[in-house]
Amino acid sequence: MSSGYKTEIKDINIISGNIVAPEGFFATGSHIGIKRKRKDLTLIKSEVSATAAGVFTQNTIQAPPVLWNKSHINNKIRGIVINSGIANSCTGKTGVKNAELMAEIYAECINADKHEILVSSTGVIGVQLPMEILSQGIKNTFQQLDRSEKSAQKAAKGILTTDTFIKEIAVELEIGGKTVKIGAIAKGSGMIHPNMATMLAFVTTDADIEQNLLQKALKETVDDSYNMISVDGDTSTNDMVIVLANGMAGNPAINTENEDYQKFRKALEYVNMYMAKQIIHDGEGVTKFLEVEVRGAATKDDAKKIAKSIINSNLFKTAMFGADANWGRIVCAAGYSGVKFDFTKSCVEFYNEIGRIKVLTEGEPVLFNEAEALKVLKEREIKVLLKLQEGDASATAWGCDLSYDYVKINGEYRT
Amino acid sequence: MSSGYKTEIKDINIISGNIVAPEGFFATGSHIGIKRKRKDLTLIKSEVSATAAGVFTQNTIQAPPVLWNKSHINNKIRGIVINSGIANSCTGKTGVKNAELMAEIYAECINADKHEILVSSTGVIGVQLPMEILSQGIKNTFQQLDRSEKSAQKAAKGILTTDTFIKEIAVELEIGGKTVKIGAIAKGSGMIHPNMATMLAFVTTDADIEQNLLQKALKETVDDSYNMISVDGDTSTNDMVIVLANGMAGNPAINTENEDYQKFRKALEYVNMYMAKQIIHDGEGVTKFLEVEVRGAATKDDAKKIAKSIINSNLFKTAMFGADANWGRIVCAAGYSGVKFDFTKSCVEFYNEIGRIKVLTEGEPVLFNEAEALKVLKEREIKVLLKLQEGDASATAWGCDLSYDYVKINGEYRT
Repeated sequence: MSSGYKTEIKDINIISGNIVAPEGFFATGSHIGIKRKRKDLTLIKSEVSATAAGVFTQNTIQAPPVLWNKSHINNKIRGIVINSGIANSCTGKTGVKNAELMAEIYAECINADKHEILVSSTGVIGVQLPMEILSQGIKNTFQQLDRSEKSAQKAAKGILTTDTFIKEIAVELEIGGKTVKIGAIAKGSGMIHPNMATMLAFVTTDADIEQNLLQKALKETVDDSYNMISVDGDTSTNDMVIVLANGMAGNPAINTENEDYQKFRKALEYVNMYMAKQIIHDGEGVTKFLEVEVRGAATKDDAKKIAKSIINSNLFKTAMFGADANWGRIVCAAGYSGVKFDFTKSCVEFYNEIGRIKVLTEGEPVLFNEAEALKVLKEREIKVLLKLQEGDASATAWGCDLSYDYVKINGEYRT
Repeated sequence: MSSGYKTEIKDINIISGNIVAPEGFFATGSHIGIKRKRKDLTLIKSEVSATAAGVFTQNTIQAPPVLWNKSHINNKIRGIVINSGIANSCTGKTGVKNAELMAEIYAECINADKHEILVSSTGVIGVQLPMEILSQGIKNTFQQLDRSEKSAQKAAKGILTTDTFIKEIAVELEIGGKTVKIGAIAKGSGMIHPNMATMLAFVTTDADIEQNLLQKALKETVDDSYNMISVDGDTSTNDMVIVLANGMAGNPAINTENEDYQKFRKALEYVNMYMAKQIIHDGEGVTKFLEVEVRGAATKDDAKKIAKSIINSNLFKTAMFGADANWGRIVCAAGYSGVKFDFTKSCVEFYNEIGRIKVLTEGEPVLFNEAEALKVLKEREIKVLLKLQEGDASATAWGCDLSYDYVKINGEYRT
């Protein structure tokens, strides 16, 4: 149970309150009866209409909430309603109607139009939402919407499935003499408990920023954070990251890629990176937090492909679970990534706070001290550096080991 | 420990003797001291020069034996020397020299030229071959080369690493009034015990067939057999399938794609398919044999991509380990295969000899009997059928579940 490492970063302060930290945002979460006991509903509201941006799963099969949001993301948005326990995925025409109905019910509660509401669901695939329970639940819960830290934490809980801890953060920074805040909640990947699929993240900010720039900043920072983590390589039908920006910070509107934009983008990147790592720390059955950095690739795309191929390799993951310095599995996974590179110029090392073990240099194996390697690999956090000599591009991916518990959690459900 | 299912097939008889069943082939295997106890050397010899064909790993990193064989596969070949225990992969310039030296040592023993010898290694990556031991071992072992079934079984053993049983088959068929034989030995995939990588298969035949047709028949049948199986999705640096055809059956030479060619191709396909399935049955920690068939895809390539995406999904594999009818994981993996298809026209069913469970029809979930589903899924062999409505193409992939033992075998080595 790691709480993650909040590293201090220049000009950005970490604050409390997650998604209600930014001005004008309200949230809450509750148990309405979709799950047996744990919270299963989260509501987010902005006092004023907010600009929205989103990135969605690349899976060919996209759940009704994803489809709804994709066709509403360019609208001004007043709120988001999220349920956990049932994913409303692979649910046919009924599922499509239910996603719309969810928006409609919540819209009525907060005096908005259904086209100003985004929706999200996570949980079992192929089961219909219990609309009576959901409708009653939303109506009972919206009255608790407020700006307290306690409500924010309820909101962080309402979106969880097999996650073992809530994932939240909020930061503040100064833009044009005004304090701008960004808050976020997320739930874990690890397509879990039968199709307790889905990586979800909801970000709020009171920054005043144009929609196309908000979308650009989101897309780019998601590519380097959420899109570089892997628990098991499975991509769900419901994945989404949504950001709402309501402009209430009163900063000079960001409408070009100026210094203010770069500041905002950097803070958003920090938030996304932090949350992505939190998700890995809470991956199913995780005993190791792994970082794979590839340097010296010909292109950034090459570097990403190689890093992801390594972080996804079951053989690499099991080796790390066993604290085994099997560097052969690393170069092997790099080799089948689809990227061409000169192996005879490659170097590999393992490292962390305990030490640094070089295992391959210029394509030749290095005789290393097994006892020292074991010390390094026994740690929870292990970094792998693969240096190529193809160019200047680099990329980093994060993942976890593959343990008995992963098999247990994913194999024993329902039986 | 399954011995696999040899299904009878028209015009093809299963016989004994594996790679020495075809006329003019000699083989043996022995323990020479690379491994602690088990056999670690296999020798194959053809009485006369044989036409060769091969398919090799697509990994960017190709071990020295792979490189040697690729540049010699068009030569007339007299023999193959294979060691297990050390893969001679990622071994720098020394490794390249050692692969050539291996060929040279064996060539001298059987009065051939080193350029008439193919080589293969499987085992740990990044460790140099002990050339003294190997040289002495080859010289001591070649004298035992003969055409007995006992020697053939020794040859089948010499190439194994973590495999738990030998994989062998031989068949005969009639071509142009002559009896033609095909024999094969193979070793398992499951990139295993630290990089006890590698899927290897060696096929011998006394058929008289032109090299380009031999290569074509091999490539096509490997694509539908070995290339459609998956234990863990990891592709090794040493994978290869080699076939030697020495023409001693005396059949009318096959030099066009006539009826004789089709007969030969069909028998070779049978041999490759049988061996590929044997490898799955012996996958690491396997408790289930899984078959995924995709029908109604737009193209064969689409069908293959989807079938492989499903068979490689850790979530699908763990669900099968747990006998859980999680069809959501199947459609989800199909969805992220990269192939576009209309999910609202998809059907999914599980079946085997015990029964047939429809779980999805035209994109709508089917209410199925959980108890009946459990009965079907408790069996060792489970088939999944995914029907699309995009076209007429189909493909089948084979794989295994992901069990505690997979993690144990791959995580606990050396520690």
